[in-house]
Amino acid sequence: MRSPLEQRARAADTADPLAHLRHRFTIPDPLTYLDGNSLGALATHVPAAVHDVVRHQWGQQLIGAWRASSWWSAPTRVGDRVAPLLGAAPGQVIVADSTSVNVFKLLVASLRAAAGRTEILVDATTFPSDGYVAQSVGQLTGASVVTVHPDDLAGALSTSTAVVLLNHVDYLTGRLHDMAGHTAAAHAVGALVVWDVSHSAGVLALDLDRIGVDFAVGATYKFLNGGPGAPSFTYVATRWQERVHQPLTGWGGAADPFAMSGQFRAAAGMDRMRVGTPDILSLLTLDAALDVWDDVDLAQVRAKGLALTGFFMDCVDELLRPELAKVVTPRGDNRGHQVSLRVKDAPSLVDRLAERGVVVDSRPPDLLRCGFAPLYTTFADALRAAQVMADLLAT
Amino acid sequence: MRSPLEQRARAADTADPLAHLRHRFTIPDPLTYLDGNSLGALATHVPAAVHDVVRHQWGQQLIGAWRASSWWSAPTRVGDRVAPLLGAAPGQVIVADSTSVNVFKLLVASLRAAAGRTEILVDATTFPSDGYVAQSVGQLTGASVVTVHPDDLAGALSTSTAVVLLNHVDYLTGRLHDMAGHTAAAHAVGALVVWDVSHSAGVLALDLDRIGVDFAVGATYKFLNGGPGAPSFTYVATRWQERVHQPLTGWGGAADPFAMSGQFRAAAGMDRMRVGTPDILSLLTLDAALDVWDDVDLAQVRAKGLALTGFFMDCVDELLRPELAKVVTPRGDNRGHQVSLRVKDAPSLVDRLAERGVVVDSRPPDLLRCGFAPLYTTFADALRAAQVMADLLAT
Repeated sequence: MRSPLEQRARAADTADPLAHLRHRFTIPDPLTYLDGNSLGALATHVPAAVHDVVRHQWGQQLIGAWRASSWWSAPTRVGDRVAPLLGAAPGQVIVADSTSVNVFKLLVASLRAAAGRTEILVDATTFPSDGYVAQSVGQLTGASVVTVHPDDLAGALSTSTAVVLLNHVDYLTGRLHDMAGHTAAAHAVGALVVWDVSHSAGVLALDLDRIGVDFAVGATYKFLNGGPGAPSFTYVATRWQERVHQPLTGWGGAADPFAMSGQFRAAAGMDRMRVGTPDILSLLTLDAALDVWDDVDLAQVRAKGLALTGFFMDCVDELLRPELAKVVTPRGDNRGHQVSLRVKDAPSLVDRLAERGVVVDSRPPDLLRCGFAPLYTTFADALRAAQVMADLLAT
Repeated sequence: MRSPLEQRARAADTADPLAHLRHRFTIPDPLTYLDGNSLGALATHVPAAVHDVVRHQWGQQLIGAWRASSWWSAPTRVGDRVAPLLGAAPGQVIVADSTSVNVFKLLVASLRAAAGRTEILVDATTFPSDGYVAQSVGQLTGASVVTVHPDDLAGALSTSTAVVLLNHVDYLTGRLHDMAGHTAAAHAVGALVVWDVSHSAGVLALDLDRIGVDFAVGATYKFLNGGPGAPSFTYVATRWQERVHQPLTGWGGAADPFAMSGQFRAAAGMDRMRVGTPDILSLLTLDAALDVWDDVDLAQVRAKGLALTGFFMDCVDELLRPELAKVVTPRGDNRGHQVSLRVKDAPSLVDRLAERGVVVDSRPPDLLRCGFAPLYTTFADALRAAQVMADLLAT
């Protein structure tokens, strides 16, 4: 006899319009992998694509591959493949460097664009790296850095605000913030916004163009499955592209890099966000990984993600004693595709879960994070994770 | 009957103590590849290593690979494998980000370390990217940027000089500059030095520790064969490590990154030069590529490089009419492993050579660059390149 939760999981997996997508990934069996929010799984066709880049392009074409395999344009070409996931028209996204490096570029560029304004507002709940970079930008430029909880943003904005740096999804709680509302509030006082969408790209249909976001950055190794440490994407709205001057003026961002001029002149368009020689292996691995999105409907992804996280919270409610594990993720639709639980000694629980084949992660001081990547996660996974947690916490 | 040049090539290849190393690389046959100074060749064992990283580590270990496969420590671990090539004791080299990004870190850190000094001296013959970055650092910090030819360095140094940024090998002419002499001159006025050794790493036994260099950076995709756009290395002498404060303060460079503290505190040692999440695929590809150096004597590499370039210049002298191709690379030992020729319409000659299976590159306005990577280049390659050039220039 199946339990009601088992029946629900079975029914949801059977009805899942995205169920076939799991076969595009190599998930070790048996493994309940709930950490695609930290490192996305490997798509099965990617190793062959990487092998081709290494063996054929590098190995056989050698230096000629910069032209023959269009290596030089890879940052914008792959950027244009990420763009639809962000709600961005072509020509506004580039893939290069790490998210932290890209936050640095955008904050300095924003201060320069907002001449006379002297304040950077930073999400108090930000992933630490963004905040560290903002502090450093403040130190370098003399701008003051003020941290503010996203809920209190309206009260903190002023005509001194140059730029607001916000995380779309809180990396700890999984809470999803109001991108349209916060962007409008910043714009109302003439400030710019930089959104870090690391935890929302590949989660829901982002809408950067329509909302009027100025700048955004994000990781590609989470829900986009680009591989460990894959390069980050940067979005610059078309209206800003001729007015941003980022400070990492490597030759890749020059108007005519192969002219080898002694004087830097920024390239037109997104190329000016480039710095050094593009990291081809990682870029083209991501390029291949993006193939899985070609025929995927983001509305279905979002619906499944909400259903998965909702079902998991129901499982937790039913199977785990509330004094042992408390859900801190919003119950409403204002969440990403992760559920965070407050537990005792989270790191040790992560290890014990891993021994039982359930992979999640922890964040200090006491949060267990469970990520649900709708392309390859099942409702059975969600139930099994909760069941194993219940077992472990009961002993 | 063999010509005297053919006899010399045959004898030199027969006597070459490094000849067996060519078999460690996949060089398309027939191809005369003289561009290892721009993109190093693929070592034959590397594809299998990359495949393991992708299939086994990422695909099977997933997030657990950060510990199980020591991904997190890869930047310093791979750095310690580069260190012997630089004459650096362990713990002073890290691999991460692009060379341009690393130049930015080091110049800002140098200005901070040289409090009160306000001038950056930049090699007037520098690869443009380094100079562009220096200009940007000047703009951000208020430091003045003065360009000076390395030959005139002594006269330009003063007690206002914070830092001198020099290229060890001139990317255009292949001239090798006096690292010990210029470093001593800078130190004599209390200035710091940043050496870009992109074109000398893997060329000769660098001696950063003994010379007392402060900082260095370099590319790994040239003579180190790390793959297209592989991450760059940064050297910080031990004595500076607790005193440098680089401005790209991503979470990777924090003292305890996984504590997720809101306040940045720089890591001890080289880890403070890190920024974002390390690019594992590219890092571990480089890691594998470095295997070929394990049993290689750099003195033999240097001797062969000088012999190859010397022989090539002899071939040019004998086979090419001097009014059609003029060697601009020094004839003495003060050269790297490239020979540059001044020719008419260099880009078109590059294309015509490629059609005949000879791969070189060009730099504006009129330089043909021929690189000689001693690990896989033969004297027969050098002769054949000169012969094909002579054919093409004669018609």
